Amino acid sequence: MILNSNPLQNLRTYAILGTGALGGFYGARLQQVGIEVHFLLRSDYEQVQQQGLIIESPDGNFTLPQVYAYRNGCDMPACDVAIVALKTTQNHLLPELLPPVLKENGVVLVLQNGLGIEAEVAKIVGSDRVLGGLCFLCSNKVAPGHIRHLDYKQITLGDYRENYVPCGITERMQHIATDFERAGIPIDRSEDLLIARWKKLVWNIPFNGLSVVLNATTQQMMADKQTCALAEQLMKEVVAGAAACVQAIDLGSTRAVPPTFIQTMLDYTAKMTSYRTSMKVDYDDRRPLEVEAILGNPLRMAKRAGVELPQIQMLYQQLKFLDARNRDEFNQAASQA
Amino acid sequence: MILNSNPLQNLRTYAILGTGALGGFYGARLQQVGIEVHFLLRSDYEQVQQQGLIIESPDGNFTLPQVYAYRNGCDMPACDVAIVALKTTQNHLLPELLPPVLKENGVVLVLQNGLGIEAEVAKIVGSDRVLGGLCFLCSNKVAPGHIRHLDYKQITLGDYRENYVPCGITERMQHIATDFERAGIPIDRSEDLLIARWKKLVWNIPFNGLSVVLNATTQQMMADKQTCALAEQLMKEVVAGAAACVQAIDLGSTRAVPPTFIQTMLDYTAKMTSYRTSMKVDYDDRRPLEVEAILGNPLRMAKRAGVELPQIQMLYQQLKFLDARNRDEFNQAASQA
Repeated sequence: MILNSNPLQNLRTYAILGTGALGGFYGARLQQVGIEVHFLLRSDYEQVQQQGLIIESPDGNFTLPQVYAYRNGCDMPACDVAIVALKTTQNHLLPELLPPVLKENGVVLVLQNGLGIEAEVAKIVGSDRVLGGLCFLCSNKVAPGHIRHLDYKQITLGDYRENYVPCGITERMQHIATDFERAGIPIDRSEDLLIARWKKLVWNIPFNGLSVVLNATTQQMMADKQTCALAEQLMKEVVAGAAACVQAIDLGSTRAVPPTFIQTMLDYTAKMTSYRTSMKVDYDDRRPLEVEAILGNPLRMAKRAGVELPQIQMLYQQLKFLDARNRDEFNQAASQA
Repeated sequence: MILNSNPLQNLRTYAILGTGALGGFYGARLQQVGIEVHFLLRSDYEQVQQQGLIIESPDGNFTLPQVYAYRNGCDMPACDVAIVALKTTQNHLLPELLPPVLKENGVVLVLQNGLGIEAEVAKIVGSDRVLGGLCFLCSNKVAPGHIRHLDYKQITLGDYRENYVPCGITERMQHIATDFERAGIPIDRSEDLLIARWKKLVWNIPFNGLSVVLNATTQQMMADKQTCALAEQLMKEVVAGAAACVQAIDLGSTRAVPPTFIQTMLDYTAKMTSYRTSMKVDYDDRRPLEVEAILGNPLRMAKRAGVELPQIQMLYQQLKFLDARNRDEFNQAASQA
């Protein structure tokens, strides 16, 4: 009996490490089209074990009454693809979480924000077993096991090689892309994961960072000529950082974030509906901020390549101060409760 | 009848333009020792006309039941010294205020924060009629005509010449210093007003600026290694700005803010009791911030001298955004009231 024209496609299994607004959404969409998915949960475990996953979405609401739910990574079966969908502030757990959930030829797909995570994961599982994905997704967890998808959903996929050497469109990337596309998720295939990551930082660094420091929405920042100019300056530093990092590993390379991309991102942001960035949501909910992945790693990578990025540096320092105070206040409130 | 060994000293009259926490304190101290002082007031006029000025101070509380109070500058008599003690955000009023209150040989003493105000005043009254003073004063207005002096009071005086050419200890500076010292105010005589102004910015730019952006006291900022490092970086940019400006007008000059001054200021701030900066007080009270005098003018002066100060630039842009939003909210609240 032939189930599918491509038998491999039918056999791939997925582990979702971090079943939140992002991992829960993509995992549920994969399971919905018949792919075997295993979900790692922490606080939501009981609820999801009992009621399954509830997804609200402009594409149509749906419930998965039964999912493979796990409280501990070591109870999960080895899978073909392990999707890292934790906040990067939880990545210290990966050396323990990843090895047991990977089949011998299994790969890791990092669906996180920021730079350099694939290289960290490669240290755990080997540099030939990692891919990266950049999610353009607007989704919130509104209750345990209950996810509200609001807008966008597309993913840019890129395969990883040591030192972010570009490796084109690989076969395993195609397989994963096919699974996601079957689940209705548009996939952009990138030949250069490093440049794709830096391009996303062109938006993420100024708008995630300033939204927290200035307590502002994207709309407020775009409406003010000072913050608009500041966002552009920060974007120029991101482009300069990308250029320095590429040249440091590949002198004379033409790989680059095109400078015109800055204006594209500014125009796009000006037209967006007003948006509270993910870092602002984390800050308001008193969760740790992804400062190291989004600002710290790019700063350190640029510095190793010989370039200082003074305004990103300052934004990083301001965020570190605010994050530390936010955590202190959270811990004080928790200890008084 | 000889009233005083130095007759000039006895005859000098003062106009205080801006009878707030600073102008009210110094003016009252001058009047207390018998010097003729005329006070310009706006909102507090009625109250002061009726009850005089009340000063609380660790040096001793006192009341001046009767003062020469004016609601309009044009009603004031011409004086020997006009002290500018408005917030710099009110300096657009100076072309109208200054000429009538100055005797033919009268001079203006600018007791404001920031850079470049003496040059602006020189355009109104002539460049040979301006002095600057940097106040190290901790004082609040607690009610109309009621000032609470908390700590410090010393003034650094410097005479002004076109282009901030250093002009040493001048005779007119000595006269004014003598009046203030008679009133118990310690005076530091500076031979170089430009360097004195930049030195004050070494503290004012990082701590006034960051206190507003990060909603933090000096103590919180000094206790965090990120903001402590950021303050030091901003101070280095101030020192670099000063050096560029001096070299632009006086190539090869040895005039400079000594780099060791940075550590002195950091140590001093670490030892200070926790302090809400004047810009933070203005922000919390929804008054306009002195962003242009304290950050905008130094940035523009440095830029003319060929130097960019990227972190001060970013702080300036953040403050302009926050100040504009703060004023909007104030105006909205006022229009709804």
